[in-house]
Amino acid sequence: MATDQPQKLFKAQTLKGFRDYMPELMAPRQAMIRLIEATFERHGFQPLQTPALEYLETLAGKYGEEGDKLLYRFQDHGERHVALRYDLTVPLARVVAEHRNEIQLPFRRYQVAPVWRADKPQRGRVREFFQCDADIVGVNSAIADAETLITGLSVLQTLGIDGAVLHLNHRDVLFGLIAAAGVTEKAQQIACIRAIDKLDKIPAAAVQTEIETGTGVDAETAGRVVGQFLHGAMTIASVADQLSAAGVDTAGLDRLREVLALVSAAGLGDRIRFDPTIARGLDYYTGIIYETRLTDPRVKGIGAVMSGGRYDGLIGLFTKEAIPAVGISLGLDRLLAAMQELELVSKDSHAVQVYVTVFSEAQAVTAIQLARLLRQAGLRAELDLAGGKLGKQLERASKRGARLAVMVGPDEATAGTAVLKDLRDGAQQTVTQEDLARTAGALLAV
Amino acid sequence: MATDQPQKLFKAQTLKGFRDYMPELMAPRQAMIRLIEATFERHGFQPLQTPALEYLETLAGKYGEEGDKLLYRFQDHGERHVALRYDLTVPLARVVAEHRNEIQLPFRRYQVAPVWRADKPQRGRVREFFQCDADIVGVNSAIADAETLITGLSVLQTLGIDGAVLHLNHRDVLFGLIAAAGVTEKAQQIACIRAIDKLDKIPAAAVQTEIETGTGVDAETAGRVVGQFLHGAMTIASVADQLSAAGVDTAGLDRLREVLALVSAAGLGDRIRFDPTIARGLDYYTGIIYETRLTDPRVKGIGAVMSGGRYDGLIGLFTKEAIPAVGISLGLDRLLAAMQELELVSKDSHAVQVYVTVFSEAQAVTAIQLARLLRQAGLRAELDLAGGKLGKQLERASKRGARLAVMVGPDEATAGTAVLKDLRDGAQQTVTQEDLARTAGALLAV
Repeated sequence: MATDQPQKLFKAQTLKGFRDYMPELMAPRQAMIRLIEATFERHGFQPLQTPALEYLETLAGKYGEEGDKLLYRFQDHGERHVALRYDLTVPLARVVAEHRNEIQLPFRRYQVAPVWRADKPQRGRVREFFQCDADIVGVNSAIADAETLITGLSVLQTLGIDGAVLHLNHRDVLFGLIAAAGVTEKAQQIACIRAIDKLDKIPAAAVQTEIETGTGVDAETAGRVVGQFLHGAMTIASVADQLSAAGVDTAGLDRLREVLALVSAAGLGDRIRFDPTIARGLDYYTGIIYETRLTDPRVKGIGAVMSGGRYDGLIGLFTKEAIPAVGISLGLDRLLAAMQELELVSKDSHAVQVYVTVFSEAQAVTAIQLARLLRQAGLRAELDLAGGKLGKQLERASKRGARLAVMVGPDEATAGTAVLKDLRDGAQQTVTQEDLARTAGALLAV
Repeated sequence: MATDQPQKLFKAQTLKGFRDYMPELMAPRQAMIRLIEATFERHGFQPLQTPALEYLETLAGKYGEEGDKLLYRFQDHGERHVALRYDLTVPLARVVAEHRNEIQLPFRRYQVAPVWRADKPQRGRVREFFQCDADIVGVNSAIADAETLITGLSVLQTLGIDGAVLHLNHRDVLFGLIAAAGVTEKAQQIACIRAIDKLDKIPAAAVQTEIETGTGVDAETAGRVVGQFLHGAMTIASVADQLSAAGVDTAGLDRLREVLALVSAAGLGDRIRFDPTIARGLDYYTGIIYETRLTDPRVKGIGAVMSGGRYDGLIGLFTKEAIPAVGISLGLDRLLAAMQELELVSKDSHAVQVYVTVFSEAQAVTAIQLARLLRQAGLRAELDLAGGKLGKQLERASKRGARLAVMVGPDEATAGTAVLKDLRDGAQQTVTQEDLARTAGALLAV
């Protein structure tokens, strides 16, 4: 490598919409991932990992027209059309079909992994973000629906997020309310749902206009559709009345009642609420759908931190067998942003605990041995590598967030001892090298 | 979604060279990742995460001609030339240059992440694999070299892999031995190194031929080059003699002596060995280089499980400041394969501990409440979702690997109790629902 010749520097730059997670942010982010994974496992979910790249055919056409445009797609070295995964749900459907013989249903899996969408960064979106999904494949029942919701709400509890409410709806209730307003063609209903999905972001009049242009129905009908979702306090009972009056089936509401009862039985009734305006953009949902919003005013703008629903038709696109499924998806980076804002992020979980100074090159061997003993005892220990005066080394120890520092000069080396200094209060004690790890551990445990 | 209409099924297929990790394999793999990360952290390394996609310019030209060909590259929606990351080292160099003002040197970071190479699958290579890297940026010293090696060897110890030997060399020793054989042009020396790198895979005569065709030197010189690396027991002293006799500088050997002494001081002397035939293919190394091989005959074919070296010129491609660096890279999937072969993989770490049966739909509420209590107590509990007779449910519990099962019939529900069954010996006891989690925890702790 011609580093000795002057040459043009390469630009050090991340791609637009992509970012590095430096240790200050990555450490708490990783602690969050571990908590989420452990909570999924406590609820009986097992880890699955799928490739970042899939055949384009596997992903295309599953996310609606807009989603299709956002797929990162290209031809690989074998001229295969491939794409980076857009979510974790369609790859799961592909896995269930491909590995059907190895999988015992019901199949509970979780996956924490990045997904890629070529979204416009000016919309505040990033193009690479982590999803944390847990899904139950093979059962269509209220108890399976409830299990996924309880799992998701438990994750939020584990992370210390108390002010979160899951807004629950059912696709049949949505379609029913739209049908009751007089829109009965499936394609038109789907266009209505796409517009209704924006009710919390744009004014009702704009939603109505979108329904008119998207479906071709007249202004009165579009106004009736929007009106269906603008009642003050819509309860299951009041929506049941609306649907019954229009002669529309209410089975979706019955399922919602059951799910709400089970989630309440688990003691989480105050964190879930029926909300008929929840529409979800994705095409593949067939049963319950939901979004979870934070109620604390400091983090209201962050948007949905957990969403998902039932998608009984998706796996059927890959295999003849009809296999129902339901799942949750947590947005890791939105959750991290919320936790930072709410000051729930711990900075200590990964920090260095003991900083081992190196008195001089002659003491490097002793320093490296003591670092080894501390690490074998399970402590996070950093060895000074920049050298210089002891004062400088202790400054670096403080900057690295270390609680304790170890010092061994020629006298201590001869005596087989070390000086252990508490960097919080400056107290120091001389201990035998044998006792160092035990004493350090005891100080850290206080 | 038109699931009610007959339609062509999508093919459920992973791309060639890519694979799914099903839970049976992913669970131990994830347990390994957690152990590796914890060991890195005990050694003072902090997590960093970089994007999967980089500007093509960032990656191109850093991995030699062959590496360049294996880059997954394409144009994104903004017609930028981009590529999937090929390793974790070049992105680290880009990060250090881009975030220079935020980073305090020495900077120790680790990253566990997938990389992508469009390699030929018939060579037994996969196209997506995980690397686990730990690097120290900002210091060129024997102690920094030793710290990275000690960290890597400690990871292998933590994983329970005892029969591993790190083969250590230095680029200057390699160049020196080649120069001593009479090849003095840099480009010719690099061609020699590429050929020498294959000495453990192809016969010496074939390596000699490759040197002749790759450099244009005569057969005698090429034979002398190969001969330099074929001595029986090459020690630092014997190589020092070879180099001194040819009037070649021996500073590289001095560095190796120091590093070996420090690693030995940490008690790891039996896991490291000087090996002048280690060449490493990548162009960017400037100091120590090494590969770690497993010695157990059952896993000898797996290849190097940990490798790396010093690359003091790489970051300088992105910034004018000269910033040295040294690192290790562990191959997660090779390690997992080795651990499976050596029967070191634990299957229990993620398995369900308690299976909660559902006697009937009327008992679903109680079952969901008991599952909640068990999970809140930190136990991994699965709720039966497939229903049917109790015997069927207990069969599923066993298949899922659960140790305990919980049963609540109408009598128990009325009495506020539950039956807890040990699936290993069939013993069962009736406990109050309040005591369930504590009793289950106690049984699992035995």
